[in-house]
Amino acid sequence: MTLTFYDAAFSPNALRTRAVLHELELGFETVEIDVASGANKTAAFLAINPNGKVPAIRDGELSLWESRAINAYLSSLRPEYGLYPVEPQRRALVDQWSYWQAIHLGPAMQKIAFERVQKPALGRSDADETSIAGERATLAQLLPLLDAGLAGRDWIAGKLSVADFALASTFMLRRPAGISLDHAPAVAAWISRLEARPAWQTAMQPYRANLAGRGIELT
Amino acid sequence: MTLTFYDAAFSPNALRTRAVLHELELGFETVEIDVASGANKTAAFLAINPNGKVPAIRDGELSLWESRAINAYLSSLRPEYGLYPVEPQRRALVDQWSYWQAIHLGPAMQKIAFERVQKPALGRSDADETSIAGERATLAQLLPLLDAGLAGRDWIAGKLSVADFALASTFMLRRPAGISLDHAPAVAAWISRLEARPAWQTAMQPYRANLAGRGIELT
Repeated sequence: MTLTFYDAAFSPNALRTRAVLHELELGFETVEIDVASGANKTAAFLAINPNGKVPAIRDGELSLWESRAINAYLSSLRPEYGLYPVEPQRRALVDQWSYWQAIHLGPAMQKIAFERVQKPALGRSDADETSIAGERATLAQLLPLLDAGLAGRDWIAGKLSVADFALASTFMLRRPAGISLDHAPAVAAWISRLEARPAWQTAMQPYRANLAGRGIELT
Repeated sequence: MTLTFYDAAFSPNALRTRAVLHELELGFETVEIDVASGANKTAAFLAINPNGKVPAIRDGELSLWESRAINAYLSSLRPEYGLYPVEPQRRALVDQWSYWQAIHLGPAMQKIAFERVQKPALGRSDADETSIAGERATLAQLLPLLDAGLAGRDWIAGKLSVADFALASTFMLRRPAGISLDHAPAVAAWISRLEARPAWQTAMQPYRANLAGRGIELT
């Protein structure tokens, strides 16, 4: 049975799942969905994900979307890799940080990146400074909390887990977005640990190349 | 070992967890956190949830926050109730809809409710009509998708699960917020099924009373 991965190089959400696919050393077939040309709105793709978003997967009869739900499912295919612990209290912490990223950290980072990176890449100079200031104030609350969570440990839930992949994907545009980690040293060290992993490096290649093609350099 | 539930009557996020606590027939002790008086910002509560938000729980040495992560953990304490299926493909669908509610449906509904319900309850008449129009357009995309997901089944993942509690809590302010389900009959029928459950009714009592105290009627 082939596992099919519906991908888009530009998407930080797809990056999160692509990295977990590589970390788990799963065999899979990639279908690149060209969002710019509307390939995400075809009837064939909407039958996979009615939201018309990437990532999505198909595994036999199962169509699945939402990157963090996909990553949890993929981990169940390779439980020996331990990316999603079975013990309820450890799993609960993985879920807690994954939801926190989805609900709080991710949207704040994404809005700043939209104003500071994506708008200029589209030739727009109308950054919404009020929005940026508001999201920066939110980040000033959230980053110390993540830094405290990472202090004294290598990964957010102790061992490497899907929560690290969820959280880290949100930081990839930090440099062009002007977000400093100078006051979050545990976060900076943790990102370096993840960036040293071959699976992360492989997953980053199409993302980095896509951004470079639009004049966005990550470093 | 006592399970402690940090609650706030006004919070739809706390409602979601309170309902699951009752559905699972768990014994627990409630600590009401008076957010209006800043009880969520005390050092004692920030040690439980550094975000200063409800709900949170404490179970022995475990402090846990993010309502959907809490609900998954609580389900693991009573696996025989089947609120969070163990079979990976069924669990994946529960996760998918829970994240979709957290990321897409919930924020859209919440922003409309803030403008249409919470601002007037505070005596404010400055509803942001541009924001409301944008979120209504989003809802016009999302509601048919949920309606299709519920068509022909009683619960979103087949059997009752934590995903139903996550999704339903988002709809409780629909009437004062002026959100019609006339074009989403499967959603309307599903909410009625959940509202018929004693656990939901028990969980709704403090929420309903709190809102009534601020002049907000749910029906």
